[in-house]
Amino acid sequence: MSSRSDAVVPFTRRHIGPSPEQQRTMLAQVGYDSAQALLEAAIPDSIRLHTPLDLPSAVTEEAAQAELRAMAAGNRVMRQMIGLGYYGTHTPAVIRRNVLENPAWYTAYTPYQPEISQGRLEALLNFQTMVSDLTGLPVAGASLLDEATAAAEAMTLARRAGKSKSPVFVVDSDTLPQTLAVLRTRAEPLGISLVTVDVTAPDLPEEFFGALLSNPSAGGAVRDHTALIEEAHRRGALVAVAVDLLSLLLVRSPGDMGADIAVGSAQRFGVPMGFGGPHAGFMSVRSGLERSLPGRLVGVSKDAQGRRAYRLALQTREQHIRRERATSNICTAQVLLAVMASCYAVYHGPDGLRGIASRVHAQAARLARGLRAGGVEPLHGDFFDTVTVRVPGRAESVVSAAVALGVNLRLVDADHVAVACDETTTESDLSAVWRAFGVESVPVRSETGFSAGLARADEYLTHPVFHEHRSETSMLRYLRRLADVDFALDRGMIPLGSCTMKLNAAAEMEPVSWPQFAHIHPFAPADQVRGYARLIADLEAWLAEVTGYDAVSLQPNAGSQGELAGLLAIRAYLAATGAGDRDVCLIPSSAHGTNAASAVMAGMRVVVVACDEEGNVDLDDLDAKIAQHADRLAAIMVTYPSTHGVYESEITRLCAKVHDAGGQVYVDGANLNALLGFAKPGRFGADVSHLNLHKTFCIPHGGGGPGIGPVAVRSHLAEYLPSDPRVADAPVGPVAAAPYGSAGILPIPWMYLRMMGGRGLAEATAQAVLAANYVASRLAEHYPVLYSGNKGLVAHECILDLRALTKRSGVTVDDVAKRLMDYGFHAPTMSFPVAGTLMVEPTESEDLTELDRFCDAMIAIRGEIDKVAAGEWPVEDSPLRNAPHTADVLAAEDWSHPYSRREAVFPAGAAAAKYWPPVGRIDGAYGDRNLACSCPPPEAFGS
Amino acid sequence: MSSRSDAVVPFTRRHIGPSPEQQRTMLAQVGYDSAQALLEAAIPDSIRLHTPLDLPSAVTEEAAQAELRAMAAGNRVMRQMIGLGYYGTHTPAVIRRNVLENPAWYTAYTPYQPEISQGRLEALLNFQTMVSDLTGLPVAGASLLDEATAAAEAMTLARRAGKSKSPVFVVDSDTLPQTLAVLRTRAEPLGISLVTVDVTAPDLPEEFFGALLSNPSAGGAVRDHTALIEEAHRRGALVAVAVDLLSLLLVRSPGDMGADIAVGSAQRFGVPMGFGGPHAGFMSVRSGLERSLPGRLVGVSKDAQGRRAYRLALQTREQHIRRERATSNICTAQVLLAVMASCYAVYHGPDGLRGIASRVHAQAARLARGLRAGGVEPLHGDFFDTVTVRVPGRAESVVSAAVALGVNLRLVDADHVAVACDETTTESDLSAVWRAFGVESVPVRSETGFSAGLARADEYLTHPVFHEHRSETSMLRYLRRLADVDFALDRGMIPLGSCTMKLNAAAEMEPVSWPQFAHIHPFAPADQVRGYARLIADLEAWLAEVTGYDAVSLQPNAGSQGELAGLLAIRAYLAATGAGDRDVCLIPSSAHGTNAASAVMAGMRVVVVACDEEGNVDLDDLDAKIAQHADRLAAIMVTYPSTHGVYESEITRLCAKVHDAGGQVYVDGANLNALLGFAKPGRFGADVSHLNLHKTFCIPHGGGGPGIGPVAVRSHLAEYLPSDPRVADAPVGPVAAAPYGSAGILPIPWMYLRMMGGRGLAEATAQAVLAANYVASRLAEHYPVLYSGNKGLVAHECILDLRALTKRSGVTVDDVAKRLMDYGFHAPTMSFPVAGTLMVEPTESEDLTELDRFCDAMIAIRGEIDKVAAGEWPVEDSPLRNAPHTADVLAAEDWSHPYSRREAVFPAGAAAAKYWPPVGRIDGAYGDRNLACSCPPPEAFGS
Repeated sequence: MSSRSDAVVPFTRRHIGPSPEQQRTMLAQVGYDSAQALLEAAIPDSIRLHTPLDLPSAVTEEAAQAELRAMAAGNRVMRQMIGLGYYGTHTPAVIRRNVLENPAWYTAYTPYQPEISQGRLEALLNFQTMVSDLTGLPVAGASLLDEATAAAEAMTLARRAGKSKSPVFVVDSDTLPQTLAVLRTRAEPLGISLVTVDVTAPDLPEEFFGALLSNPSAGGAVRDHTALIEEAHRRGALVAVAVDLLSLLLVRSPGDMGADIAVGSAQRFGVPMGFGGPHAGFMSVRSGLERSLPGRLVGVSKDAQGRRAYRLALQTREQHIRRERATSNICTAQVLLAVMASCYAVYHGPDGLRGIASRVHAQAARLARGLRAGGVEPLHGDFFDTVTVRVPGRAESVVSAAVALGVNLRLVDADHVAVACDETTTESDLSAVWRAFGVESVPVRSETGFSAGLARADEYLTHPVFHEHRSETSMLRYLRRLADVDFALDRGMIPLGSCTMKLNAAAEMEPVSWPQFAHIHPFAPADQVRGYARLIADLEAWLAEVTGYDAVSLQPNAGSQGELAGLLAIRAYLAATGAGDRDVCLIPSSAHGTNAASAVMAGMRVVVVACDEEGNVDLDDLDAKIAQHADRLAAIMVTYPSTHGVYESEITRLCAKVHDAGGQVYVDGANLNALLGFAKPGRFGADVSHLNLHKTFCIPHGGGGPGIGPVAVRSHLAEYLPSDPRVADAPVGPVAAAPYGSAGILPIPWMYLRMMGGRGLAEATAQAVLAANYVASRLAEHYPVLYSGNKGLVAHECILDLRALTKRSGVTVDDVAKRLMDYGFHAPTMSFPVAGTLMVEPTESEDLTELDRFCDAMIAIRGEIDKVAAGEWPVEDSPLRNAPHTADVLAAEDWSHPYSRREAVFPAGAAAAKYWPPVGRIDGAYGDRNLACSCPPPEAFGS
Repeated sequence: MSSRSDAVVPFTRRHIGPSPEQQRTMLAQVGYDSAQALLEAAIPDSIRLHTPLDLPSAVTEEAAQAELRAMAAGNRVMRQMIGLGYYGTHTPAVIRRNVLENPAWYTAYTPYQPEISQGRLEALLNFQTMVSDLTGLPVAGASLLDEATAAAEAMTLARRAGKSKSPVFVVDSDTLPQTLAVLRTRAEPLGISLVTVDVTAPDLPEEFFGALLSNPSAGGAVRDHTALIEEAHRRGALVAVAVDLLSLLLVRSPGDMGADIAVGSAQRFGVPMGFGGPHAGFMSVRSGLERSLPGRLVGVSKDAQGRRAYRLALQTREQHIRRERATSNICTAQVLLAVMASCYAVYHGPDGLRGIASRVHAQAARLARGLRAGGVEPLHGDFFDTVTVRVPGRAESVVSAAVALGVNLRLVDADHVAVACDETTTESDLSAVWRAFGVESVPVRSETGFSAGLARADEYLTHPVFHEHRSETSMLRYLRRLADVDFALDRGMIPLGSCTMKLNAAAEMEPVSWPQFAHIHPFAPADQVRGYARLIADLEAWLAEVTGYDAVSLQPNAGSQGELAGLLAIRAYLAATGAGDRDVCLIPSSAHGTNAASAVMAGMRVVVVACDEEGNVDLDDLDAKIAQHADRLAAIMVTYPSTHGVYESEITRLCAKVHDAGGQVYVDGANLNALLGFAKPGRFGADVSHLNLHKTFCIPHGGGGPGIGPVAVRSHLAEYLPSDPRVADAPVGPVAAAPYGSAGILPIPWMYLRMMGGRGLAEATAQAVLAANYVASRLAEHYPVLYSGNKGLVAHECILDLRALTKRSGVTVDDVAKRLMDYGFHAPTMSFPVAGTLMVEPTESEDLTELDRFCDAMIAIRGEIDKVAAGEWPVEDSPLRNAPHTADVLAAEDWSHPYSRREAVFPAGAAAAKYWPPVGRIDGAYGDRNLACSCPPPEAFGS
C-alpha cells in the first residue's frame, strides 16, 4: 500500500498535456533521454539559468483559490458612484454564465480564420452595429483597448486623415482626466501639442488638426457641440467626441452633431468594472474615414458558394501591420468584452436599453432636485447621469460621510463632489447620498435633466437581432448557436505560432467572476482595495523574478501597449541622461510589425537590421547599422527566442554590442513561453521587455482579447514606467486609462503562478520545447522545417516550409490551412514570419494523442498535395482548394469532384462530434471591395 | 421621453418566451382576446381562484440574488468531519464549470431518446463501470436517489429475488442511522420485520430473506464479512453491503466478500454535500440479479448501421412502470450527479483515486495514533477514514471545543465522538481535532489502519476512459465532445408532455455553486445553518400558499418519494383515526405507473377506475368501485389536469365522492404548471399532493435527475409528514437520507418564486396553457387532438393522435419522433398516456418563433407521411423510418433512397448550427438480448 502514491495530483500535471509516459515517447522521437537534456542542448549555455526560480512552492487548485479568496476579502464592494467612465452594471446571468464563463467563447483565438469564427464575428458585427447606430456614425470598429487609448487613436487618426498641417490638437478641458493623461503620453513623442479649451466659452487656436470633445463631460454636462464642430471643420480640423454609450439612448448622437469620430467605452453595457478593466473601448467614424480606422474591423463578404460570411475586413492593417509606416500599433481588440456588451444590447434591445437609460437619468434628475432643494446647487443644467455640485470646503467630508454609508462618490477637489447614477443605483443609494450631503428632502419625481434640444429623436438598433432574443431561452440558444459554429480550444488544438494557445484552467478563470474582484471601481480609495494591492504586489514580484528584471508595471492592457511603455521608458531614460537625441531603433527584418509601429509611436526612427539565412540577426549588418547610427542609437528590439522559433546563440553578444554603442536592449516577450525557468531576459542582457499575460501566463485569448502586456525593466528604467493617470508630472505618463490596466483578470496569472510554482513553470517550458521538437521531428520528412538552432533543435515552435510544395503542386498555405479545418483543427500561423510557410506552436498543454492527431493530419495532407502534384487531382478541384467543406456542400445531390464525399468531410475517419465549418472558403477581397461593416439586412440571409 | 417605459424588465418577461405581441398572435389563432379569457374558458369555474396568490412581490434577478446572498451568509462553512455518509470533496473546477454549471448538461432530459443522448449515456456507462469495478459486482445501475433509499431498494430486491419466504430482514446494527430510519419507513407497510444484529458477534435469526451489512460501519469499522455472507447464503438470504466508494480503492470489495448487492453514495466523488443532496446513490448486483435492478440501467446496443450505441436497457422497468405489480416506484435517477462522480473518476483515474484514498486513510491513521498517544483509545482496530473514540462523559465538550476551532465532529452519544477524514482534510484540521480532545502529541506518520487481510489486491478502472483524460485540456474536450452529441434545452425545444421542460434560468442556477450552500453537512448543528433554515421556511410557506395546502415537507428527493410520503401520511392518519384497515387505493386507468407502484409500497391495494372516451375518470365506475370497497377505501390518486392534459370539470365532485366514502384524495402534482395562480388543489378538494420542483419550479432535469418531490398536505395530515431521520418514534419515518432531502438545489425554486411573484406565476400558467392550445390549434387539421375539455380547449399539453395515420401509412410514432431529430427537435412524449400518440407540452418558455418552427416541422412531417401513404415512398425506405440521419450516412457515396440527401438532413432548410445525431436509429431489443452495462472494450469502437 505505502508504495503506491499518496500525493495529491499537482496542478502542473493537469496543465501539462502529456503524461510522463507520453513524454518519454516524445523524447525518444526527438532523441533525448530527458527534457532537461533536451533543453540543455537547445538553449545556449551563455544564457541558461543554473538556479531555480524563487517563487512560492506550488499549491493545489483549492489551496490557491482559498488564498485568493482571503485576498479578495481585502477588497470592499461598495456602491460605486464615482463615475469617470466606470459604472455599476448588471451583467445578465445568461451572458455571464454562457459567455464570460464559457470556454467556447473565452478560449477562442482571434478570428483570422473566419470560416471557423463566424459566431464571434457575428457578435462583433452586432457590436459594430450597436456602436454605429448609437453614435450616429456609419462605421465602427470591433473594439479598442479602452476609452483613453481610443481617444489617443482618434487623435492620430485625425492627424493622418485631416488636411491641416498644424501640430495642435484641441481637447475639451472637461475631459475624463485619465483620457487627458493618456493623450499627453501619446502626443508628446509625436510632436503633437495639446491645447485644452473650455468648450462652453471656446477660445479656439487659429489652426489645429483635430479636437476631442466630451459628451457628457467628465463633470456630467451634456452639451450641443454642433456649432463648435462646424467651426472646427471650417478650420480644417477633424472632431472626435468621447461619448457615454448609455447616454446615447436619450441624447443626440455625435453623428447628429456633425462629428467625424466618436470614441468611448462599452463597459456599462454589462461588463463588470473589474478595478479598471478589461472593457471594450470603441471608435466609430463618418463615411470616408473607414479605411483609416485603427484596430480590427469585421466586414461582410461571401464564401465560395456565394453564402454571406463574415471576416475581418482590410486585414493588412493589422496582422501584417505596416511596420515603420504604421499609424497605430494596436493588434488586440477586447473581443470577449465587446461580445458581452453587444449581447447585452441584443438581450435588452432598444426599448430595454432606453428603459435603463431613462431610469438612470430619472434617478440623476431626482438626485439633483433633492440636492437643490437642500441648498446644494448642481453645476450643470443639462446632465445625463452625473451630477457635480459645489460644496465649498466640505467636499472631503461629504465623500467620507458617503463612504461611511457604503457609497463611493467622486472627490473632484476640495470644493466639488460628483455623483454618478447607473443601472444598479437604488433608492437607498440616493438616500445615502442625500444624507452624506446633509440633505433631508426626498423628492418623489423629477423632470428630464436636459433640455429638449439635446434629446434624441432618431431610431436605432432596428436590426432584427436586437429584437429577437428577449426571452432567456432564446438568448441562451442564440449564444449556443454562435458558440457552436466557432472552433476554440475546448474542441481541439490551435497550434498558432507565437500565440501560445495553451490551457486556460477553470480554476484560474473562476475568481474573475467573484464580486470582490468584479465590482471594484478603479478609482476606489486605497483602503478599499487592499486585496487588489496584495494581488498586484505578488504578481509584480513574481513576474520580476521569472524575467530577471527589477520592476514591473501591470498597466499596459495589451502587448502593443507594453511595447510602447517600454520604448517610452527608454526614451525618457535617454533624455534624462543627456542622450535625448538618440532616436534610432534597430529592428531585425524578421520582427513582428508591431515592434516598428511602437517605435514610431515612441518618436523613434526605425532602422532595419538584416537577418541571415538561418533567420538570425545578421551580426555584420548589426555592426554596420550601429556604426552608421552611432550617436543616434537609442535601442534595439529583438524577440527571443526569435520570431523564427529559434534560440539564437549570439543573443548575449548582440546585447553587448548595442550596450557598448550606448543603446538599450528591448527583448519582446512574446516567446517567453520558451524561456521561463531556463533563462531570464533581464539577466542575459536586456533592459526591458513586455510580457504577454495572455500567452505565457494563461489569460485566455477571448476570441481576440483581452490581453495584458506588462512591461518589465531593469532598475535604471524603473522610474520611467507608466504612471498612475491620477499622478501629475510623472516622468512618463500612463499608457492606459486605469492605473492597473485590466486588473480584473489579474487573478488568472496569479492563480497560474501560484499553482505552478517555479518548478512547474520550468517543466512547462521544457514540455513546450519538447512538443515543438516532436512535431518538427515527425513532420520533417513531409515538410522541411525552415529554421533550427543548436543541434538542429527548434525552440517552442517550428516553421514548416511549403514553398517548394506550392511551386510543384500549386497548393498554397491557405489551402493547407483551410483543409486542416476538415480534419478538425485550427490552422497554424500562416505566412509569418516567412511567406509561404506555416508556423506551429503546440504548447505544453497538448497531450501526445492530440499532437499525433495533428501530425497525422499534416502527413495525410501531404499525401493529398502529392496527389495534386502527380496530376491525380487538379489543384482547382482538389479537396485542398475546396476546403473547408460544409455540410451543405455534402448534402448536394451531385458530386462532381474527383475525390469522394467521405474524403471531403471525414478525411481522418468519421467522428460523432465532428466540427462542421458553417461556411466555405471566404472571399476576403470581395468584402474589401464592397465594404459592409454592420449587420446585413435579413434579406441578405437567404443564401 | 417620459412616455417611454423606464421600468426594469421584470424576470417574468425573460422567463416567458413569447413577447406580448407574439402572445396576441397566439391568442388570435386560438380565438380569445386575452389569456385571462382563455383560462377562464379552460379552467372549470368550480375550482378557479378569485384572489391573487399571496407571495412577496417579484424582484429582479440581481435583487433576488442579493437577498439570497444575505441568507447564504447565515450558513457557516466549517471543516466537516462528521462523516455519516457525507464528506468534504474537491470538485475539480473543470467539472464544476463544464458540467454542473453548463446548460448543455443540466437542461438535458432523461435519455429516453437515446440517439440524441449518447453523451450522457456514455457518462452514465462510465458511472456504472466505475461502481461495478469498485464494488466488485458485474452490473451497476445508472444511480439511485441516495444511499438510504438504495438500501431500501436492496431490501425489496432481496425479498423478490431471494428464495426465502421469511419476512425478516437483518440489518447491521452499526449502519448509518439515516439508512436504518429509511429502512424502517419502507419495511413497515410491506410487512417486513427488521432485525438489527451486531455483526461482530452475530446472533442471526433462524430464517431471513436478506441482510444489509455495512463496510465501513457507521462508526468507521472495516470488517471482513465473508463468513457472515456465507452463513446468510446458507440460510437462503441475499446479502447487500452498504459501502463507501472511496474506501474501495484500498479495501476488499463486497463482491470479493461474496455479497449479492452493494449500495452506497457517490457523493464524495466530487459532488458537494449541499446540506444533504442531491448526490448519486448507487446499486450494483451480482450476475443473475441484473433484471431485478431498480431504477435505470444504461446498456450497449447498436444502431441501424451497426454502430455501437448506448441506450437505457430493459426500459419497461421504468417509463412503463409495472403499475400495481411494480416492485419499486423509482423513476428518476441522479444523472447530473452521477455524471459528475463518473467524471471525477475519469479525471483522477485509478491511480489518482487510490492516491486520494491513501491520503485520507493515512490522515485517519495519524489521527488515531495521535489520539491513542494522548490516551484516547479508538474503538476499532480496522478503519478507513473514520475514527470513533470513547471519551466518557465528555463527548459534548469535545465536540464543542472542535466547533470553536472551526471543525464539526460527530457526537455519537454522551461518551463517544467520531471523526471522519476526507479529501479536503488538512494538517491544521488534524491539529484542531487533537486540540479539541486535549491531546498534545502530533505523530509524524503512521501505519495502515487496517489489517492486511482487508486490503484490496485486484485491479479496477482498467478501461481506457479512466486513463485518457488526465490533463485538464483533454478532460475539457471530452466533456465538450459528450455534451455536443446531446440535445438539450440550450439547443431547442423539448416538448415533452407532463415533463415541463421550461427555462432553467442562469440566475436561478448560479447560487447552487456558492460555497455557503454547497459545503454544508446535513447534520451540521442548527446554529450553523440559519440560512438554509430561512430558505426552507420561505419555500415551505410559498409552496403551501400556491397549492392551498397547510404544510409542506421538502424531504422527498424525487416525485416518486413524494408520492410515497403522501400515501404514508394518509395511511398513518387512517390508522390513527381508527381506520387502519382501509387499504384500497383507487387509481384511474390513465394514471402514470408510478402512482400504483407508490400505493403498493405504502401497503395499499390498487383498484383501477375506468376512464371514459374523453380520458376523464368515469364517475359511474368510480361510484361502483367506491361502493364495492366502501369500508376499505383509503384513497384515490388522480392527476390534475389529467394525464390527458385536460381540466376535468368533475374534479370537485370526484373529491366529494371519495371524501363522503371516508377516503382521502391524493392529487398528483405533475401537472401543476397548468394550475399555479388559477387553482389550488388544497382548496378544490384534495388532501395531499406531491409537487415536482424539477417541473413546475425550474429545477433542471439534469439529463434525468436530480428532482425534488415535496409533499404538501392539509392540516389533518401535517403530523404525518416524513420525519427527520434523527428523530426517533415519529408517526411516519423519513423517506430520504437527509432531513431536507436535496437541499442543495432549493435555491433554484426559491429564486424562481422570488423573481416571478404571484402574478408572474399566474402569467406563466396562462402562457403555458395558451401555448398548448396554440400548438393544438395549428396542428389539429394535420393530427387529431385526442382529448380536450371545456370548450374544446386543452390544458398545458395536448395529445396528437397518430393511430389513423399509422394504420394508413405504416408510419409509427417512433418514426415521427426520430424524424423530428432531423428537424432539430427532441420528440414529444411517445405513447403515453395512450399508445400510438404523441403528447406535446410546449411550456410558457418557448417563444412563438420556436413554437412555429415545431408546428412547421410537424406539418412537414405530416406531408412526408402522406407521401408514404400515397405510395410515393415505401415506409421501410422513407425518411421517417430511416430517421435520424447521421452525417456518416450523408457522406456515403451511394444514395439509394427515394428521397434526396438534402431532404434527409436538412428537411427544413440548411442550418449552420444544425444538430447532428451521432448515431442512427438504435436497436433496443438487440441490447436487451445481449445485455452489456459497462464500458465496451476499445475494440468494439471500430466502425
